[in-house]
Amino acid sequence: MTNPMDTFETLNPPQRMLMGPGPINAYPRVHQALSQSLIGQYDPVMTGYMNQVQSLYRGVFHTQNQQTMLVDGTARSGIEAVLVSVLEPGDKVLIPVIGRFGHLLCEIANRVGAQVKTIDIEWGEVCMPDQVEAAIKSFQPKLVATVQGDTSTTMNQPLAEIGEVCKKHGVLYYCDATASIAGNELKVDEWHLDAVSAGLQKCLGGPSGSAPITLSDQCATVINQRKHIEAGIRADHHINGQGKMIQSNYFDLAMIMDYWGPERLNHHTEATSMLYAARECARLFLEEGPDTVIARHKQAGDALAAGLVAMNLELFGNQTYKMNNVVGVYIPANIDGDAVRGELLSRFGIEIGTSFGPLHGKIWRIGTMGYNARQECVLTTLAALEAVLIKHRANINPGQAVAAAIEYYA
Amino acid sequence: MTNPMDTFETLNPPQRMLMGPGPINAYPRVHQALSQSLIGQYDPVMTGYMNQVQSLYRGVFHTQNQQTMLVDGTARSGIEAVLVSVLEPGDKVLIPVIGRFGHLLCEIANRVGAQVKTIDIEWGEVCMPDQVEAAIKSFQPKLVATVQGDTSTTMNQPLAEIGEVCKKHGVLYYCDATASIAGNELKVDEWHLDAVSAGLQKCLGGPSGSAPITLSDQCATVINQRKHIEAGIRADHHINGQGKMIQSNYFDLAMIMDYWGPERLNHHTEATSMLYAARECARLFLEEGPDTVIARHKQAGDALAAGLVAMNLELFGNQTYKMNNVVGVYIPANIDGDAVRGELLSRFGIEIGTSFGPLHGKIWRIGTMGYNARQECVLTTLAALEAVLIKHRANINPGQAVAAAIEYYA
Repeated sequence: MTNPMDTFETLNPPQRMLMGPGPINAYPRVHQALSQSLIGQYDPVMTGYMNQVQSLYRGVFHTQNQQTMLVDGTARSGIEAVLVSVLEPGDKVLIPVIGRFGHLLCEIANRVGAQVKTIDIEWGEVCMPDQVEAAIKSFQPKLVATVQGDTSTTMNQPLAEIGEVCKKHGVLYYCDATASIAGNELKVDEWHLDAVSAGLQKCLGGPSGSAPITLSDQCATVINQRKHIEAGIRADHHINGQGKMIQSNYFDLAMIMDYWGPERLNHHTEATSMLYAARECARLFLEEGPDTVIARHKQAGDALAAGLVAMNLELFGNQTYKMNNVVGVYIPANIDGDAVRGELLSRFGIEIGTSFGPLHGKIWRIGTMGYNARQECVLTTLAALEAVLIKHRANINPGQAVAAAIEYYA
Repeated sequence: MTNPMDTFETLNPPQRMLMGPGPINAYPRVHQALSQSLIGQYDPVMTGYMNQVQSLYRGVFHTQNQQTMLVDGTARSGIEAVLVSVLEPGDKVLIPVIGRFGHLLCEIANRVGAQVKTIDIEWGEVCMPDQVEAAIKSFQPKLVATVQGDTSTTMNQPLAEIGEVCKKHGVLYYCDATASIAGNELKVDEWHLDAVSAGLQKCLGGPSGSAPITLSDQCATVINQRKHIEAGIRADHHINGQGKMIQSNYFDLAMIMDYWGPERLNHHTEATSMLYAARECARLFLEEGPDTVIARHKQAGDALAAGLVAMNLELFGNQTYKMNNVVGVYIPANIDGDAVRGELLSRFGIEIGTSFGPLHGKIWRIGTMGYNARQECVLTTLAALEAVLIKHRANINPGQAVAAAIEYYA
């Protein structure tokens, strides 16, 4: 154990090019936002910023939902806030599992006491709407919960038709869009999503630590039926809901809505610096334009994939459903995947991703997200990967990858 | 509702002097840390920083506890992580309530399904060890949970003797030190505390959004008996504990310990910018020296109190137990407390605090915390408050307050 009085050196993180499945390098303007002066939580400037953040994320989510706000934690805090606030113990939730983060939804739903039914999809594929409809008919869930982009497999689950199915059967529909938002199309209202949660550390180009969420009016009503305002601040005009008290205080979206709403009822102390970052991420997305940003991600992802294929590497999964912002690529035969990743980091300062579960040791995951969905990042990563693979005597086509990506960009 | 495509102006928060009960102005070095480059969560530099943060907070907490880390959320995320991880449904917890944040502990403990017994103390006083001992004997709790500094009343609960009582009776002892840490003495090992949680946004001089916690070996063992590693990442060598699964994934300290421990088992994606801030807060505290920082808080708090008394204002609560870093002061007769606060903010850019519950409308709360535990902040606040009170025709002694504070500093 180190000496507890040791204060270590001045913070001086190396300049990495983060080309894994996230976190990624933040946009420079987000760094600037993070360093701005703090203000009090009920300062009119601060509550003004909170209102702006709500408006900005309505733009990001393509929604008119009044209940659009931040949960103060990493992306999975947003997931848990939705699931623990919507699902009472014993409630039924249907979860198509297309990868690791589908398992995470199941895990969280189990812990909040829900009855979980899964639709288990082979890794590298997505779930079809008729599978969801059949399961809704037999299982009669309160909620369908999906992941949109599951970085563990790089697949992007189509949501629109499942939204139609849920609407038809009167089932609430939640999606975790952490890894896909701002890099892939996401239209909350048009696709009949009742709840969506996200994070900043992927295509939104910010740090981990803030979870934007949006709730439909119907979903907000379901949650507010469980409202129980905490004893320390409850007043006579507050009426408790008839539903079972939400089993988390921190993730009680009924109270968090009141903190972000006109009553400004005290809950946590808003994480001001992270709110500044979230605000700037959304401004960057909306200023550049949602369609432009998503097209930039698709272009970077496709150029990277073209380069990898030209190098003679094989891509993982059903490419029809590939996320724009991350690609899975098989580690070539007789190559130590972790050694290659280590050399990319130590020699080039480039980070690419390993993988989980059934894919561990079989594929790398390479991301092109947010600020790094740029031609220079794509080309540099391809050149560096080729050089390291040549050094490791992998069976690749030398000199083809960067050219193919440049050709794609042309 | 605003136009969802509106991107608003560039972030430009006003420069406030935050002299309320927190949040406060961060140290300038913390702002610098927040803006540093991001790195990957398993980058050796990042895991090195995580180890440093563990060591640094051992210094802050005065502990040798291996299990010292951050929870990614605001201060109350640390409270909930401890309570939901330690307390199984039905477990008994004894909570002395000296103010609003004691009610919060009860609220969270109720939601995790614990049986809660309170010792209700009049606001402005603290709980005596013999009251705790008598209640332990009759109630036989698994855990005693207290708040150290409860900003709602400005009282600082003495902890050492209650620690002795808990040790004698074999009861776990948890304290929320969010508002008191780094401004008041806190000796985790010496006082036999088994779990402590905190936040950055008070005397540590950082932004809200990260919750340092520490757990004794005994407490970690109790929590690890409930360990259930999530399905997506569970491997054959992982053995589930015999206890009931922790009902939160995000706050599962058994998994969070594994994320911070040598296995580095993936849980959330660490909030890198907030970790940088937390690291810098601890470095500043240890560099200046714990005793020096606490003495600076006591000096600022006492100087402020001397000035307020010289102005002919009355202080709230038992001054023997007053927190160093915040004072409660009665709003003078016939004065609109919120109007005075509003003018302090609009004319001087100075924020002081309102109050909760039984004290609402009766007292202001004025803080001297972290970077703002400085003579210039104390004197400026006294001068500004006096000027506004004179404008409001309050019955005060003009021209005395700043002089009294300067004399105290001399």
